[in-house]
Amino acid sequence: MSKGILLIMDGLGDLQDAKGRTPLSAAKKPNMDKMAKSGILGLLSPIGRGNVPGSDTSHLTLLGYPYWEFYGGRGPLEALGSGIKLHRGDVAFRANFATVRNGQIIDRRAGRIPTELGKKLQQKIGKMNIEGVEVLFVSTVEHRGVVVLHGSGLSAEISPTDPHELGAVVQSHALKAGAERTARVLNEFTRRAMDALSRAPENSGRKLPANAVLCRGAGAYREVEPFEKMHGITGACVAGGALYKGVAEYIGMDVIAVPGATGSKDTDLKAKGNAAIKALETHDFVFVHVKATDSFSHDKNFEGKKKMIERVDKELVPLLRKSGANIIITGDHSTACKFGKHTGDEVPLLAFGPGFRTGTQKKFSEVMCMGGGLGHIDGWDLLPIMLNAMGKARMVGT
Amino acid sequence: MSKGILLIMDGLGDLQDAKGRTPLSAAKKPNMDKMAKSGILGLLSPIGRGNVPGSDTSHLTLLGYPYWEFYGGRGPLEALGSGIKLHRGDVAFRANFATVRNGQIIDRRAGRIPTELGKKLQQKIGKMNIEGVEVLFVSTVEHRGVVVLHGSGLSAEISPTDPHELGAVVQSHALKAGAERTARVLNEFTRRAMDALSRAPENSGRKLPANAVLCRGAGAYREVEPFEKMHGITGACVAGGALYKGVAEYIGMDVIAVPGATGSKDTDLKAKGNAAIKALETHDFVFVHVKATDSFSHDKNFEGKKKMIERVDKELVPLLRKSGANIIITGDHSTACKFGKHTGDEVPLLAFGPGFRTGTQKKFSEVMCMGGGLGHIDGWDLLPIMLNAMGKARMVGT
Repeated sequence: MSKGILLIMDGLGDLQDAKGRTPLSAAKKPNMDKMAKSGILGLLSPIGRGNVPGSDTSHLTLLGYPYWEFYGGRGPLEALGSGIKLHRGDVAFRANFATVRNGQIIDRRAGRIPTELGKKLQQKIGKMNIEGVEVLFVSTVEHRGVVVLHGSGLSAEISPTDPHELGAVVQSHALKAGAERTARVLNEFTRRAMDALSRAPENSGRKLPANAVLCRGAGAYREVEPFEKMHGITGACVAGGALYKGVAEYIGMDVIAVPGATGSKDTDLKAKGNAAIKALETHDFVFVHVKATDSFSHDKNFEGKKKMIERVDKELVPLLRKSGANIIITGDHSTACKFGKHTGDEVPLLAFGPGFRTGTQKKFSEVMCMGGGLGHIDGWDLLPIMLNAMGKARMVGT
Repeated sequence: MSKGILLIMDGLGDLQDAKGRTPLSAAKKPNMDKMAKSGILGLLSPIGRGNVPGSDTSHLTLLGYPYWEFYGGRGPLEALGSGIKLHRGDVAFRANFATVRNGQIIDRRAGRIPTELGKKLQQKIGKMNIEGVEVLFVSTVEHRGVVVLHGSGLSAEISPTDPHELGAVVQSHALKAGAERTARVLNEFTRRAMDALSRAPENSGRKLPANAVLCRGAGAYREVEPFEKMHGITGACVAGGALYKGVAEYIGMDVIAVPGATGSKDTDLKAKGNAAIKALETHDFVFVHVKATDSFSHDKNFEGKKKMIERVDKELVPLLRKSGANIIITGDHSTACKFGKHTGDEVPLLAFGPGFRTGTQKKFSEVMCMGGGLGHIDGWDLLPIMLNAMGKARMVGT
């Protein structure tokens, strides 16, 4: 019987470059390589072979909540991760401050406005009541925010007002019968927000005024069976990014607040490691998330990704190892530096600890994982494998 | 973002002979071996581990239409592949000219009659109207043909008139309530066809007169979501055999007519390669089919199969490689030369191109594929893996 740590380096997997290297294979990571030698490797398809996972669908599935049953849009996860309490039937959106000129979106992030300015502008919008629906806008980090609709008879089956590209501001419309009112409410919110923001003195003089709020990722909130009841273990989450904290909140894990955990490349990995070890004293299982590996991949920055992996190996992994827990290190998807986007390629996975066998491979890399003793696993296999290693799996039958 | 080619060598996989050789491992195929070295290998179970695929169920599944949902009998696929237009609810059969003497079938292929004679005999049968059902018989190649029933209230739940062995001519009967009329129509067609053929002067003097039409593979036609809509890419098919063209037609791929593509061992592989490259200019994805590897296996001809693989390596593969596309080379099932029939053994698979990782194996063979970096995949994994390599997979979630 031992505890478990799942360390997700976001977007960890990669394709090889012309020299056959990936950020993971090229990284100097003596700690992880040592664990690979006495642990066991494998390749992970978070949502099935070849399928390209979003971070939300992948994390839910890896944590034992298969996406096809438990995923209902990004909005509620972002809202929960931002500390907003949701009620069953609420419809939530991920929102962006944006800059609109003559009805055209000219910057989808309003020049990545500072967080403090976003908080001030939030006051100008405030809470609204539209057609009996309470509309809440919350500014979170930089241009990011969340919109929540609270009321009865709402539907998430509406189109986004964020066109995901520059161009005309779009109206939301119902994707299914019965969603017309929700679309009208979102459109009226959008109109009023633009009106209020365009009159805000904070925007005057800004080259890219934050004069619009664009919404996407509509999702209706519902409660799900909490992690402890579902899997028979207590769980905690150590993460910087709102989405990952939101996933943990949604499935009833304890989200540990860690000063210095930013979800960016400057994140305090030692603080996260110490918080994880501490959480392990009171929980069976801790999920630790590191975002920057993915961000570097999106920026096509091979060296940055490699160095981030080296930092994790140096600053975070030794702390986690000291716990004596079963540790799985993997990613939520591959993000190919050469394309700058998520791919459906399998993700390297390393399992190490008292509950795992020792395989034959010597280092942690995509190619070594091809010959790993765990073989090729799907995302929904991960938690059962961890529970088994922890001695916490329930026997099926007698 | 790059294009994709799926090359199916029918019945490619095999069991080892006493010396441990298979036709694939024994073949001199420098081009494929070179691709194996910089590409990645795996083993494919087209319709799941151990299951023995038919060519029809396998191809549907490999092309992203899982057989349990989209397969409704061989008849409609043969009909579509022979250029016959079907309407929803039509019931189609694969048909054979046969020789019957004293009520007993003495040759199920009427001595493999020449195609020209079949076309002449088709005129003697013509179109019929039986109980309000239009019955169409079309002779295709040699003894082969297709029967289509067109009308309302038809059912494919009837037994075949082809007993699949020598012996008495059998009557079709309903396998489910409501199919009685369809069985009666088929039996009446069979009676009238035997009557007309026995009076045909073309049969006089033939030792094995083509004096009966036997039907099997009943299937009701329905339209399915077209390939482009289903998978987000345009697709074309280069094949000789009617069944493979029929599968492509059924799922809405463009079927390219290639003079010299016969579906036999004399097929013009260069013509097929050039047609595939040309099709790739206007399509995202091309499916290329080579039949003869399977035919040699059914004839228990190890050397013939091996030489056919060598011809494909020399005449077809270099043309495909020039395209720069992502290429997957595999089979639709294994056909064991020592048994002369399809088996459920995994099929060797080679993937090569800009969207694939490089594995560690050096040659393309059943044994090398056991250690391949793609591991063991099922037929329904193939198209997602190809779409991902092409950069055309849709992300699930955000």
